[in-house]
Amino acid sequence: MKLIKNAIGRMVPDELNGKKQVPFQGVGKYKPKGVKAAIPIRSVADYPADGDKRLPSIKEALIKSGLKDGMTISTHHHFRNGDIIANQVFDIAAELGMKDLVWVPSASFPCHAHLIQYLESGVIHHIEGSMNGPLGQFTSEGKMTGTGILRSHGGRYQAIQDGDVHIDIAIIAAPTADPFGNANGVTGSSACGLLGFALADSQYADKVIVVTDNMVPFPCVPWQIQGNNVDYTVEVEQVGIPEKIVSGTTQITRSPDRLLLAELSASFCDQAGLIKDGFSFQAGAGGTALSIGNFFGDIMRERGIKARFARGGSNKYLVQMLEEGLIEYILDGQTFDLEGVRSMRENPNHTDTSPFTSYNYHGKGNFNTMVDVVILGATEVDLDFNANVVTHSDGILLHGIGGWQNCLLSKTVILPIPLFRDRIPVIRDEVTTICGPGELIDVIVTERGIAINPLRKDLIDATKNSDLPIKSIQELKLEAERICGAPAKIEFDDEIVAAIKWVDGTIIDVVRKIKE
Amino acid sequence: MKLIKNAIGRMVPDELNGKKQVPFQGVGKYKPKGVKAAIPIRSVADYPADGDKRLPSIKEALIKSGLKDGMTISTHHHFRNGDIIANQVFDIAAELGMKDLVWVPSASFPCHAHLIQYLESGVIHHIEGSMNGPLGQFTSEGKMTGTGILRSHGGRYQAIQDGDVHIDIAIIAAPTADPFGNANGVTGSSACGLLGFALADSQYADKVIVVTDNMVPFPCVPWQIQGNNVDYTVEVEQVGIPEKIVSGTTQITRSPDRLLLAELSASFCDQAGLIKDGFSFQAGAGGTALSIGNFFGDIMRERGIKARFARGGSNKYLVQMLEEGLIEYILDGQTFDLEGVRSMRENPNHTDTSPFTSYNYHGKGNFNTMVDVVILGATEVDLDFNANVVTHSDGILLHGIGGWQNCLLSKTVILPIPLFRDRIPVIRDEVTTICGPGELIDVIVTERGIAINPLRKDLIDATKNSDLPIKSIQELKLEAERICGAPAKIEFDDEIVAAIKWVDGTIIDVVRKIKE
Repeated sequence: MKLIKNAIGRMVPDELNGKKQVPFQGVGKYKPKGVKAAIPIRSVADYPADGDKRLPSIKEALIKSGLKDGMTISTHHHFRNGDIIANQVFDIAAELGMKDLVWVPSASFPCHAHLIQYLESGVIHHIEGSMNGPLGQFTSEGKMTGTGILRSHGGRYQAIQDGDVHIDIAIIAAPTADPFGNANGVTGSSACGLLGFALADSQYADKVIVVTDNMVPFPCVPWQIQGNNVDYTVEVEQVGIPEKIVSGTTQITRSPDRLLLAELSASFCDQAGLIKDGFSFQAGAGGTALSIGNFFGDIMRERGIKARFARGGSNKYLVQMLEEGLIEYILDGQTFDLEGVRSMRENPNHTDTSPFTSYNYHGKGNFNTMVDVVILGATEVDLDFNANVVTHSDGILLHGIGGWQNCLLSKTVILPIPLFRDRIPVIRDEVTTICGPGELIDVIVTERGIAINPLRKDLIDATKNSDLPIKSIQELKLEAERICGAPAKIEFDDEIVAAIKWVDGTIIDVVRKIKE
Repeated sequence: MKLIKNAIGRMVPDELNGKKQVPFQGVGKYKPKGVKAAIPIRSVADYPADGDKRLPSIKEALIKSGLKDGMTISTHHHFRNGDIIANQVFDIAAELGMKDLVWVPSASFPCHAHLIQYLESGVIHHIEGSMNGPLGQFTSEGKMTGTGILRSHGGRYQAIQDGDVHIDIAIIAAPTADPFGNANGVTGSSACGLLGFALADSQYADKVIVVTDNMVPFPCVPWQIQGNNVDYTVEVEQVGIPEKIVSGTTQITRSPDRLLLAELSASFCDQAGLIKDGFSFQAGAGGTALSIGNFFGDIMRERGIKARFARGGSNKYLVQMLEEGLIEYILDGQTFDLEGVRSMRENPNHTDTSPFTSYNYHGKGNFNTMVDVVILGATEVDLDFNANVVTHSDGILLHGIGGWQNCLLSKTVILPIPLFRDRIPVIRDEVTTICGPGELIDVIVTERGIAINPLRKDLIDATKNSDLPIKSIQELKLEAERICGAPAKIEFDDEIVAAIKWVDGTIIDVVRKIKE
């Protein structure tokens, strides 16, 4: 393994877990050659003519799928912290004496701390996906055998589509399915909305297992996952813990600081002329984002403006705007509450999307580049507007990338962030981990001022006569440091514990082991 | 080129248009090796960030797509005899001086007689698709430069998916689309229901052009064709002639002979115990099929039976049964009338399907093997129940295969056919062209008796004490010949003008040039 300085100045390895890697070459610079993953041709003659692909247990399905040492296994985060299937899969793998598996979740949650024992015992070699919370801590401490690889939702689709990651066995937990394998997330007691994060796996994995606690006779309509891509189906008592499925912040913030951030962000969008008839936006979950959506609603009502579409993460506030007619369509990648689930089930204008339609950078375009305004978070931002979303300022890997990188490709990207967290400034000379290149980040909104990326002269011009507290990012940094002092530099070990992929599969940065 | 006797006794070539071929090896016997077609990886960086892929004309789109001699071009029959785009595409190709193109329509109609001039002038080398009516006559006369290849709807998906046919440029005419290329068939003045026949092309063609006369702002919802697979979009005055889109017989038959066939078929299904709670059926279009659907409805109402699903071709009668609650779902591959279009647009239980979900033999199962009862037609049947659906008894190629072969894989296949047509017996020692192996054809219903395939002992047992006029197929044949005389054998030239593919891509039979 050799380290190479990539186009954003970070030293990244040319190899990860024994596979050659390409360093980040700049936004839109890396042009993939070659073809998408070619999957084996199947024959209907090898599948049950009556369409009944049921097996009595996940264990049997894993054995029939040919589970063996070193395989790559995928699961998905549609049930978020209420997922119980991923843990069961690796319990079975451990029981069967498997070693060196690679786990490719679409995201991980605290409930997956259960898997640390298998990372320790060698059942799981490494994780390619998000390493949140306890798994992130474990990784940061250098305890994972292999090197973790973090990808965005779109990057995960890209990697599977392009054959960078070959999934041997995909286990798709579904709120409703039929014995043939058609499955959806809009009905059943574990309804989570949609199953888009499993799309790539269903299309490209060698073996696909659908697990459900609500088996209905064929046809399961709608079929968000197509049974024609499925090998086996399994009926279980429970696929997820309903009350934990809809987690995350689903209430608008009541914190005065966050409300201020939200109001300033919405006001910026308004005064910069971004909120106009037919516009589109994506705000995501979290109290601040939800509040911004509400402020958008107020502005739209006042001005008689309608949005053509909002990208979800949907929630009750967005659904309300759809039903009120303020938004014509919700193009939804993930429902964050039960109102989102209901609306997707009932309203044809609330449409499920997938990382393929919305985020995949290696397609013939994607939805996200068309979105006018995107509101995102960040743990740190540097003076070039480069931002971090995976590590905290203590250097520990604590978040996945989610759709964050993909959303950066939207027309205007706004990060409402507090100027400091726990008295640690968020704007720094250098971020701990670069997840997004500054050229794609347009506006930083803090409680003490708004910084516009100098590249966005149009936004600078549009707001220069406004009453908004526009400042330079340098000014904001100094202001924070005047209050909190300059943050100490974190000391890392040399060892690379995880790599951050850019949306095109190149390596934009790495995470190093924290010093004891 | 060498001729080989295939598993059903027909002499078929080992090569067609310079490509190696596999002879039919028996139902379920040919196991494909290798992988699906691998398509080039694209980059979002090469597509407009605002999602606007519009070009001013089809001509410009073809030029930008790199149209050149020898390329394979596909169009689709969603507008049936009201299609105007396929003709325009080849007018442009001729104007640009193109030669030796291969046309891969999902089906052809009499409106495509316009293309005969290009088959004559060498713009089109040969057709892979259906050669109906005038194009069939032209082909049968040995006038096409290359050899025609006929595939079922499922076989077309299989061939494109497996890379047997590589589409260079797909032109998808759509009733509604957005500039990004999302498209559907349920809205717009040319609404035709769905666009499933273009799915394979959108997924596997090098260049995909969507043409519409109803361009809406992004997003076009639902997106039956995904803009993420589309290269260019073109807005035109008109994509189809609405009054010709909904063609075919859309009224139940009033012919007493056909009504008798329909009633006998329905009565057979009833007495054989095939019509039971939760069953499924596919009847298709055509006066007799529509009548059978109606008779099914009567039986179901009388017995309080509900069907779990009906496969469409949908029509107003099927829609009525759905709305009445006699059918829970319509899984629809093609809407045959405007009621079908309306229902698909409005009713979530009337779902669009594709040749991938329903018919593709090289997937992990398909819908059609799960259908309980399928009603189909045939031009000829032999004593082994082998049937012909593409040539008439005069040897001329006049029909495409459609979904006919695919439907043979259903649980029970019933062919209601008249014992003779124009005083020519339909049951023969040998059919002109074998399109479907007799082992898959279960029941022949004629106005003078019903023959059950000896392989279906269960059906023979179930109906042996019924009042149905059960006879052997030999008896039926003799009865026809007593009335009409034994048909003369047709004389053919040696030249092979077209080949018939089985659902797995092997050659089941050929069509030879007719003698002058």
